[in-house]
Amino acid sequence: MKRCKINWLVIWALVHTLALSVNAQSTSARSGSADGPYQPTWPSIDSRPVPAWFEDAKFGIFIHWGVYSVPAYSPTARDKVGIYDRYAEHYWRRLLNPSKTQSFFIDFHNRNYGPGFKYQDFAKDFNAEMFQPDEWANLFQQAGAKYVVLTSKHHEGFALWPSKLSWNWNAMDVGPHRDLLGDLTKAVRDKDLKMGYYYSLLEWYHPLYKKETINQYIEEHMFPQMKELVTTYKPDVFWTDGEWDYTSDVLRSPQFLAWLYNDSPVKDRVVVNDRWGKETRSKHGGFFTTEYDLIHEGDSQGVKFERPWEECRGIAGSFGYNRNEILEDYSSSEELVHILINKVARGGNLLLNVGPTADGRIPVIMQQRLTDMGTWLKVNGEGIYGTRKWDAAPRIDKNTTTYFTRKGNDLYLITTKWQDSFSVDGVSSGTKVRLLGYNGAVKASAKGGKLTISAPPVTPATVPCAYAWVYKLEKAL
Amino acid sequence: MKRCKINWLVIWALVHTLALSVNAQSTSARSGSADGPYQPTWPSIDSRPVPAWFEDAKFGIFIHWGVYSVPAYSPTARDKVGIYDRYAEHYWRRLLNPSKTQSFFIDFHNRNYGPGFKYQDFAKDFNAEMFQPDEWANLFQQAGAKYVVLTSKHHEGFALWPSKLSWNWNAMDVGPHRDLLGDLTKAVRDKDLKMGYYYSLLEWYHPLYKKETINQYIEEHMFPQMKELVTTYKPDVFWTDGEWDYTSDVLRSPQFLAWLYNDSPVKDRVVVNDRWGKETRSKHGGFFTTEYDLIHEGDSQGVKFERPWEECRGIAGSFGYNRNEILEDYSSSEELVHILINKVARGGNLLLNVGPTADGRIPVIMQQRLTDMGTWLKVNGEGIYGTRKWDAAPRIDKNTTTYFTRKGNDLYLITTKWQDSFSVDGVSSGTKVRLLGYNGAVKASAKGGKLTISAPPVTPATVPCAYAWVYKLEKAL
Amino acid sequence: MKRCKINWLVIWALVHTLALSVNAQSTSARSGSADGPYQPTWPSIDSRPVPAWFEDAKFGIFIHWGVYSVPAYSPTARDKVGIYDRYAEHYWRRLLNPSKTQSFFIDFHNRNYGPGFKYQDFAKDFNAEMFQPDEWANLFQQAGAKYVVLTSKHHEGFALWPSKLSWNWNAMDVGPHRDLLGDLTKAVRDKDLKMGYYYSLLEWYHPLYKKETINQYIEEHMFPQMKELVTTYKPDVFWTDGEWDYTSDVLRSPQFLAWLYNDSPVKDRVVVNDRWGKETRSKHGGFFTTEYDLIHEGDSQGVKFERPWEECRGIAGSFGYNRNEILEDYSSSEELVHILINKVARGGNLLLNVGPTADGRIPVIMQQRLTDMGTWLKVNGEGIYGTRKWDAAPRIDKNTTTYFTRKGNDLYLITTKWQDSFSVDGVSSGTKVRLLGYNGAVKASAKGGKLTISAPPVTPATVPCAYAWVYKLEKAL
Amino acid sequence: MKRCKINWLVIWALVHTLALSVNAQSTSARSGSADGPYQPTWPSIDSRPVPAWFEDAKFGIFIHWGVYSVPAYSPTARDKVGIYDRYAEHYWRRLLNPSKTQSFFIDFHNRNYGPGFKYQDFAKDFNAEMFQPDEWANLFQQAGAKYVVLTSKHHEGFALWPSKLSWNWNAMDVGPHRDLLGDLTKAVRDKDLKMGYYYSLLEWYHPLYKKETINQYIEEHMFPQMKELVTTYKPDVFWTDGEWDYTSDVLRSPQFLAWLYNDSPVKDRVVVNDRWGKETRSKHGGFFTTEYDLIHEGDSQGVKFERPWEECRGIAGSFGYNRNEILEDYSSSEELVHILINKVARGGNLLLNVGPTADGRIPVIMQQRLTDMGTWLKVNGEGIYGTRKWDAAPRIDKNTTTYFTRKGNDLYLITTKWQDSFSVDGVSSGTKVRLLGYNGAVKASAKGGKLTISAPPVTPATVPCAYAWVYKLEKAL
Repeated sequence: MKRCKINWLVIWALVHTLALSVNAQSTSARSGSADGPYQPTWPSIDSRPVPAWFEDAKFGIFIHWGVYSVPAYSPTARDKVGIYDRYAEHYWRRLLNPSKTQSFFIDFHNRNYGPGFKYQDFAKDFNAEMFQPDEWANLFQQAGAKYVVLTSKHHEGFALWPSKLSWNWNAMDVGPHRDLLGDLTKAVRDKDLKMGYYYSLLEWYHPLYKKETINQYIEEHMFPQMKELVTTYKPDVFWTDGEWDYTSDVLRSPQFLAWLYNDSPVKDRVVVNDRWGKETRSKHGGFFTTEYDLIHEGDSQGVKFERPWEECRGIAGSFGYNRNEILEDYSSSEELVHILINKVARGGNLLLNVGPTADGRIPVIMQQRLTDMGTWLKVNGEGIYGTRKWDAAPRIDKNTTTYFTRKGNDLYLITTKWQDSFSVDGVSSGTKVRLLGYNGAVKASAKGGKLTISAPPVTPATVPCAYAWVYKLEKAL
Repeated sequence: MKRCKINWLVIWALVHTLALSVNAQSTSARSGSADGPYQPTWPSIDSRPVPAWFEDAKFGIFIHWGVYSVPAYSPTARDKVGIYDRYAEHYWRRLLNPSKTQSFFIDFHNRNYGPGFKYQDFAKDFNAEMFQPDEWANLFQQAGAKYVVLTSKHHEGFALWPSKLSWNWNAMDVGPHRDLLGDLTKAVRDKDLKMGYYYSLLEWYHPLYKKETINQYIEEHMFPQMKELVTTYKPDVFWTDGEWDYTSDVLRSPQFLAWLYNDSPVKDRVVVNDRWGKETRSKHGGFFTTEYDLIHEGDSQGVKFERPWEECRGIAGSFGYNRNEILEDYSSSEELVHILINKVARGGNLLLNVGPTADGRIPVIMQQRLTDMGTWLKVNGEGIYGTRKWDAAPRIDKNTTTYFTRKGNDLYLITTKWQDSFSVDGVSSGTKVRLLGYNGAVKASAKGGKLTISAPPVTPATVPCAYAWVYKLEKAL
Repeated sequence: MKRCKINWLVIWALVHTLALSVNAQSTSARSGSADGPYQPTWPSIDSRPVPAWFEDAKFGIFIHWGVYSVPAYSPTARDKVGIYDRYAEHYWRRLLNPSKTQSFFIDFHNRNYGPGFKYQDFAKDFNAEMFQPDEWANLFQQAGAKYVVLTSKHHEGFALWPSKLSWNWNAMDVGPHRDLLGDLTKAVRDKDLKMGYYYSLLEWYHPLYKKETINQYIEEHMFPQMKELVTTYKPDVFWTDGEWDYTSDVLRSPQFLAWLYNDSPVKDRVVVNDRWGKETRSKHGGFFTTEYDLIHEGDSQGVKFERPWEECRGIAGSFGYNRNEILEDYSSSEELVHILINKVARGGNLLLNVGPTADGRIPVIMQQRLTDMGTWLKVNGEGIYGTRKWDAAPRIDKNTTTYFTRKGNDLYLITTKWQDSFSVDGVSSGTKVRLLGYNGAVKASAKGGKLTISAPPVTPATVPCAYAWVYKLEKAL
Repeated sequence: MKRCKINWLVIWALVHTLALSVNAQSTSARSGSADGPYQPTWPSIDSRPVPAWFEDAKFGIFIHWGVYSVPAYSPTARDKVGIYDRYAEHYWRRLLNPSKTQSFFIDFHNRNYGPGFKYQDFAKDFNAEMFQPDEWANLFQQAGAKYVVLTSKHHEGFALWPSKLSWNWNAMDVGPHRDLLGDLTKAVRDKDLKMGYYYSLLEWYHPLYKKETINQYIEEHMFPQMKELVTTYKPDVFWTDGEWDYTSDVLRSPQFLAWLYNDSPVKDRVVVNDRWGKETRSKHGGFFTTEYDLIHEGDSQGVKFERPWEECRGIAGSFGYNRNEILEDYSSSEELVHILINKVARGGNLLLNVGPTADGRIPVIMQQRLTDMGTWLKVNGEGIYGTRKWDAAPRIDKNTTTYFTRKGNDLYLITTKWQDSFSVDGVSSGTKVRLLGYNGAVKASAKGGKLTISAPPVTPATVPCAYAWVYKLEKAL
């Protein structure tokens, strides 16, 4: 392990080459304490380690909620459209801007609301009258999630808190007439979960956005709003998006991050992602992000994901609630547990999205999925939380059914397919094996550097859980 | 004809007088061919056997859909209210009439709609714009259901078809502006399922209903409407309700049934229930009904349920969609499979309700439940469909986990709890046993009139299904 | 009593058989006392004189208010359409049924409400939240009107009172959620004005109406509803319409009228019109009706109008409120005063219509018109109320500016054009002349059977009124 | 340039120091040509004369239209409330902020919309679907108005044009989805009328407004928006309001005006008023303003109104449309003509307000009033347009019925009360007198410096107009 880590530090040093302002220590501390002050440059910003809680958390809940939750409409995979075309939160854009799916939206819109009905008119039906933040927080806790990320503002620009920068286009002034973000934040923290906010840097139709220069947008709107959000609600995660139109230089992201890391009330604990300019994903910021396996699929095998990373995706194909999605569009609980295992085994987190309805409910099918995951994690969480990727594990591919995670000297073999026996290379012969959630003994024998584990004789009455099973290999490393 | 009828009445008399404990013959007779003409008297009406398809079907889908699907609101079991108080379809009544839960409804209503907003005003938001009858029908088929019963009109009086008797208070004139009933009927029949209609005899607020005499209501409204429904859509099941205010004599139910059995276009195949007057449940009509185990729980053990009967209930606690219901209010797929088994083993059918949303969708959690049941039935349906109660089975109580059904000479042992072995009394020693869905052999040995079955060594990889398992005992009887 | 009736029937027979050109006597007789019982035949029904108060009243207010007041839309004279095509109360019919103006309605409807929005959906926006019946009644009184006729139910079938026969399609169940008719009736009577109801015999889209036979419609809907209205609210005028599809025989109108005249609570005082079947206008019933001068224009000069009659029209071109109407579509106060004079001089009444808005207000321009008429009538009412046609007056044509009415021995010369002098034939030479509202003397001299009147020297400071001026010729006859 | 300016300042000093009672010269100078560049100081700004067209115009139309036109509700004089409390455009403020009338608004609001309905929710019902700008412009022209002032944005902050500074709170983004201001501007100019905009400096609830400092509001919102409005639509009048919270120094009004006068596209022709800071009314800016006779009533008699001034008021008691106003709340056409005469005789303009409905119509009663004024002006406009106050006229008080205006050497005697004769002092004995609109001669005789005019013998058939009559005294001065 030590060898491995030193090796890693060499690579890390190379990556950053000079730019070291003495960050060998801070880097090794990357999951440790933060230093500062930080300069508004990427090398300095990047030198701040991602606070350790994040990499240990493994499982977070993403929430996409906004005016788009009213029409709640998009094509689905059954309509043979691409991944991004399934995002119901893009309704406004799809309706107005030419694209392959525009006619799909126009037909639906005109038939149900009429051509004179504009997107802004949906705001009056975003009422959240059934919203029970404590129930939501309880669900997330029961699901085994450790943090929550809510869309404070999506590309539509609608703020879920009473932002002075979005007058009459926020949840207090119109629609719910309630500080949705504030109320959820309180409930989530009451359950000892971390609270973070998604924030879209771009706003499709903000009058200041589409200028030749967006300086005015940044100075008069974006920066003041980001700071308002941070200072008022003190997020644990600040999860930006909508960074693709401009470079981070134009967006002045390092400047914001320097403020966030040096002067904000969350300077010591806040976690950010890598969406800070069209060139920054998997390069700069805090943790790296993937989305529906897109962008970096497979990279986590190699050296690129030298940082904590996180996969985000919906339970079905959209982030914002999509009324078009039927059962077959939803991932099953089994599939979701497998996805979580896959991401964690590669060293990543899973940020699984729920799309609440306009009246403020999390669809019961999503409650079912999260609860099933929580049931699984109650038995098997030991092999997930706080673990790290086992670098010596066999490469994961789409046929993989046996995964590994490690924690200290212990190794966890996680199988998504019940097998009578498993062979594991490179582990200590003194390893003691047990099946999490199962009281009986598990037979294991070492031979030629290979440990062979025999599945115990479970029946439907004695099997510890569904979906996947975790063998703990104590002191295997 | 006359001879045959007299013959039947004799049998009928025997059934009632002698309380035969072995009613196999009478039952098979009851499911035999219908005679006629029928007189508008209960003895004559009751002499018509329930068409055999019904008792073989075992599993139907109930659908409660109406204006109440717009507020979609009621207390739940978590609110410590009784079973009937959880019915969201009673919103109007609960709002206006004093009861223990009235304040619950008034508070919600005034807060969200204002005191000036009347129940009728909800109709404009009953739009069914997402309604896909073919998808619904496909779901019901995949669930393994054999028939569907839709609320053509509930106590609110709102007709789901363009009824001339409910002008401007039906789904064509207001709200969806569509013949919901007609469109669903076509889709369901395209899947070769039977189609039936729930019809409420009472209408809470119909101006003609609350008179000292309801003759005018019956003559000018109810009878014409029932006949309009029957002659236009030709139901396989005519499922009445709201019969409790008057006796069947006042309601002239035998008169309607005589028309239905003698002169209607469905006279040979229609199935009716037992809700035809305040005194008729479990006494007169066609099949008998129970509801959330209420009314007749336990009676099916004895002689009283000498007729086919059917339990209706929701997947959660309400029939009409109730937005208040969260995951814990829903029966799990396992519980639903167990309920089905319980009812079938007692000789009954299960009419499981779904509550569509006002925009025309069946909530995905309900799709999940139905699909899970269908998955189970695909493996185990042989032990359900077309079976009859095994009268020699051990009495079923709330701790029962081993159930029996029979079909011809075969017996099915259905267990909701995996056990290593089972003992069965009173079966042939030559019985051959197998586990449905499992290819391997099942050991069974007869000794002293008792057959002992040993469970095969399944693993999570080889178990044929979840929830419950069916052993077929061939030629056991 | 009997003697009296026989006497009348003799006169009646004479009137019809001989076509008397001088019917002064019969007319005065017709306004005499009523007898009974009446038979359900036209001769008997027609034998009942119109109660005298009606012919004395001269000026009534018509009110068209209903669901059509929500869209409140129709072409106007500026659109070059015929008189009936300007009626906003026909919106539903125009929208659905082919006609020259259908596209006008469809374009407007689809543009503003969308094709999925049905006429019934307008009901939710008929709120009457500003309705102040006392203010209305006060206005009518100030206008000098003596009676009010409200559309209890127009062709759309929507009842303005909580009619048991129009469940969920009346102002109590939907829309205003208020008994508009009852509340206005009370307010009007508190001002000592008579209250009457317009009632449409036909209902365009009532499911029972469009049958080959409308017997069921009449028996189960129309007759019960008419009787409900009469017995509950006791109208002074029962003003039917929508009689053109069937003969009075099919509509059984004489039967209803016999009940109304013999058995109803208003049998002694109720006044009806002549719209009781496709053949009855200007032939049978009570008073005769004209509408925008149509149907009988000019007939009042001759023998046909041997009965009291009444012209109805709007202040502008529509009865129901039409938002399209601008100032130039409205008759000026001067024109309205002239119309009143014209009709009264011909022996008729004027029933001038106001179209309230959906929120329950009488547009201020209509208040202005009515108030101006009232101001004129306060000065000149003596020459209007209680007068009769002067049969010896010069024939009225479209260029007429000098009119006459009579009351007892007095004659009134009403001029719509100020002239320096007037000559009148056939009056007593002892006649004394004065100008109503003017204190000074008026010179008049008789010569050769002709009386010459000289206008007094008024200035803007001394002229008694605007629009028209009335010279009273005392003891002229 | 400098010379010229100094010259003007000298005149200005004279005006203020000597309080000249004869200010004909200074006035004519003030209406002369504009110079520049102007400094951002009041002395410099005030040195610019009001463009002459304004003082000649005399009669303009004010239009208050906004989201407040949806509830269109306020108490009236009948409710015994003060003038400002009758303004329906203050609905939002009255609803939320404590005041004597708050309960009036809360009661109405809760009863009709419910407590959960916020002011912003009204925007969806501001649809302007009946808006016909050409008809409006035609009406204003027929009324004899020479300019129009539309509320581009009232205290609510809602912009009637697609302002980039009011995203989602303007008429293009929400509500009408139309550039109301742009469309009306075009129509008004097509009729050769001047077009101006009211603009509220304050916004009650703009998040940037209520800070300790409003610098950010001014820099990022107000100034950019004012400039956007000016450069896009090029107003002839820029009519500010809402200036009372801050001094003009804080609001930086002179700075804006310097830009407007030096650099804007309307620098040469734009007219502004005096509402630029809490201390500026009747002191600085362009023309002075009064409102419902408030603020400066009587001052126009003396030296204070040394500048052009303008009285604004509604036809009834509110500027924004108030559905509560009935006929008695409206000024009659006669009263309005009298008000116009009164103001013009004092040297002022009348800016008479119309309050359109939310659907885009000018209530017909307002059309009637404007048309009546236009009818009067067609006959008598010569004595109104282009005239100036006659300083030698008798002092005007509330009993005055005889007014004077002058133009060149001619004097106009305007009487609101028809009299047989008038005496006028201080006019030339050679004066020739005629009655405008009357073809006959008018007798006049001079004696002892007094001219006595005898009214001609008009009748209702020959009187030239209603309401008021104008005698022209040619070459009287």
